[in-house]
Amino acid sequence: MKKVVFDTDIGIDDAMALLFLHYSPDVELQAIVSGFGNADIATTTRNALYMKEYFGIDAPVYCGAAEPVGKRLGSGYPDFVHGHNGLGDIEIDEPTMETETLSGAEAIVEIVKNNPHEISIVAVGRLTNLALALDLCPELPGMVKEVVVMGGTFGHNGHSGNVSPVAEANIAGDPQAADKVFTSNWPVAIVGIDVTHETIARDEFFELLKKTAGKAGDFIYRSSRFYLDFHEQVTGGNECPVHDSSAVAYLLDPSLYETKTAAVRVVTDGIAIGQTIAADPNADFESNAWKDQPTCQICIGVDSEKVLALYAKTLALAVQ
Amino acid sequence: MKKVVFDTDIGIDDAMALLFLHYSPDVELQAIVSGFGNADIATTTRNALYMKEYFGIDAPVYCGAAEPVGKRLGSGYPDFVHGHNGLGDIEIDEPTMETETLSGAEAIVEIVKNNPHEISIVAVGRLTNLALALDLCPELPGMVKEVVVMGGTFGHNGHSGNVSPVAEANIAGDPQAADKVFTSNWPVAIVGIDVTHETIARDEFFELLKKTAGKAGDFIYRSSRFYLDFHEQVTGGNECPVHDSSAVAYLLDPSLYETKTAAVRVVTDGIAIGQTIAADPNADFESNAWKDQPTCQICIGVDSEKVLALYAKTLALAVQ
Repeated sequence: MKKVVFDTDIGIDDAMALLFLHYSPDVELQAIVSGFGNADIATTTRNALYMKEYFGIDAPVYCGAAEPVGKRLGSGYPDFVHGHNGLGDIEIDEPTMETETLSGAEAIVEIVKNNPHEISIVAVGRLTNLALALDLCPELPGMVKEVVVMGGTFGHNGHSGNVSPVAEANIAGDPQAADKVFTSNWPVAIVGIDVTHETIARDEFFELLKKTAGKAGDFIYRSSRFYLDFHEQVTGGNECPVHDSSAVAYLLDPSLYETKTAAVRVVTDGIAIGQTIAADPNADFESNAWKDQPTCQICIGVDSEKVLALYAKTLALAVQ
Repeated sequence: MKKVVFDTDIGIDDAMALLFLHYSPDVELQAIVSGFGNADIATTTRNALYMKEYFGIDAPVYCGAAEPVGKRLGSGYPDFVHGHNGLGDIEIDEPTMETETLSGAEAIVEIVKNNPHEISIVAVGRLTNLALALDLCPELPGMVKEVVVMGGTFGHNGHSGNVSPVAEANIAGDPQAADKVFTSNWPVAIVGIDVTHETIARDEFFELLKKTAGKAGDFIYRSSRFYLDFHEQVTGGNECPVHDSSAVAYLLDPSLYETKTAAVRVVTDGIAIGQTIAADPNADFESNAWKDQPTCQICIGVDSEKVLALYAKTLALAVQ
């Protein structure tokens, strides 16, 4: 069993990832921590509470960061991707439940301290909450089992960034926070969009979930209409990449991914702001910001069919 | 016939490229412009005059920039690559000739104005002289036939930078100048080290030149000993990549290279200073420093055997 803290800016694909965690028999979800990103903090936190209530998720919801710790790329929120309500503008009831008292960052520290070496953090939004948790508790890295991040791009498979030619939204939304997370001494795995773009969910996949995953499948089918429309405008196909659920797939079965080990730094200003750059921490350059930094596991390839199959198989447990 | 201005920080491989131009039947060398880089400006200028005198090169020598126009990565000069005298520490006589009165940048402007639409500029050092020439004469781009640059890296073929994980020395030595050159509206072709590293000169190649290229072959053989020793420490092989001569090969026969068309910007500060980044100038991002910028031809592949054969064949003309 994996004890998981899910740090998420819900978000259509975040909601899919949350249900992946919720229905996985291998996961004990400890907390949902919200963050700004796919929508503003009020919206993503409301969505977390909505998901908790609608799907009967036991884990408490903590309200995370409303803004980045450092300079971000761009401004505003991508309502053209996730809809105004962050869930593809499907009708949702206002939740009656409320968030816990602790902030997202405080909750991360508290839960890790109460479960030393047992917590897996899956972070699929801006890494602001994790950076704030590291500020609150510098010894945090030594107590966390693993951190799985969906974010960044390393240029594999010819894929570029999605908010600039070199930057991905989760990282570009708080580059300084991401740099702090990647250079802290804990086991970090990163699934970037250059790899999530290799796992494509066609509309047939959403039809399958609708048929086989009950209420969860129906919710995913409905909320994905807006998301598919957006992606169709970009690619011409009625399909979308599987972003956030790829981090959960990695958590559940790392063997689905091919990885390389490297130090990762994030560009925090200038034209390449938000770019994730992997390099050998032992390379001998006069100037080398990667020198002697801790390493991350960077996904460079994926068995996409198995990822989709694991998702569908796990969600089918929703009707049992 | 190509009328060529050669902008160079001589340099062992620069000297090889100069001889490639000098002995090519398709080139009328108009000027040699020196620049700081592989050694300080006094040394590279002395080396240009030495080459002119030793090989009877008609083209005048102009003294170029002693320092970058913007912030550079690192400090000092790579005497561990090119030797203290920039020519592999072989014995060389002090030249008796002197440089012309005009500065390197002034000379570039003057020569281009006197030969509108006819001048090919081959730049194999820092791009400082070209940036200064653009400052002196903003209408310069419209009057130049082409610019061929050896510099940068775009990550093809798995090759990284040579002065940081993402930066190559010619660009990192004056990133602001390079950014100005790449975003000016003239035909620019770039041979980065990710492609020059695909053309490897083994010691047999230098032996061949020694046998077939007379005084030039003997000079190249002698000056390359230091260069090969340096590269052997890095790669373990008695061989070196063909950097600067690759720009000349592209000039003489672009069909030897596979290229792509993209806008190129240079990172001018931060951990990625000196990184060359290629992107689609038509891509639709909220933030995009590449948007609507002029494009460059970026080399992404090379027929290495033909490049080496063209070099050897051209140098063999030295003994006729």
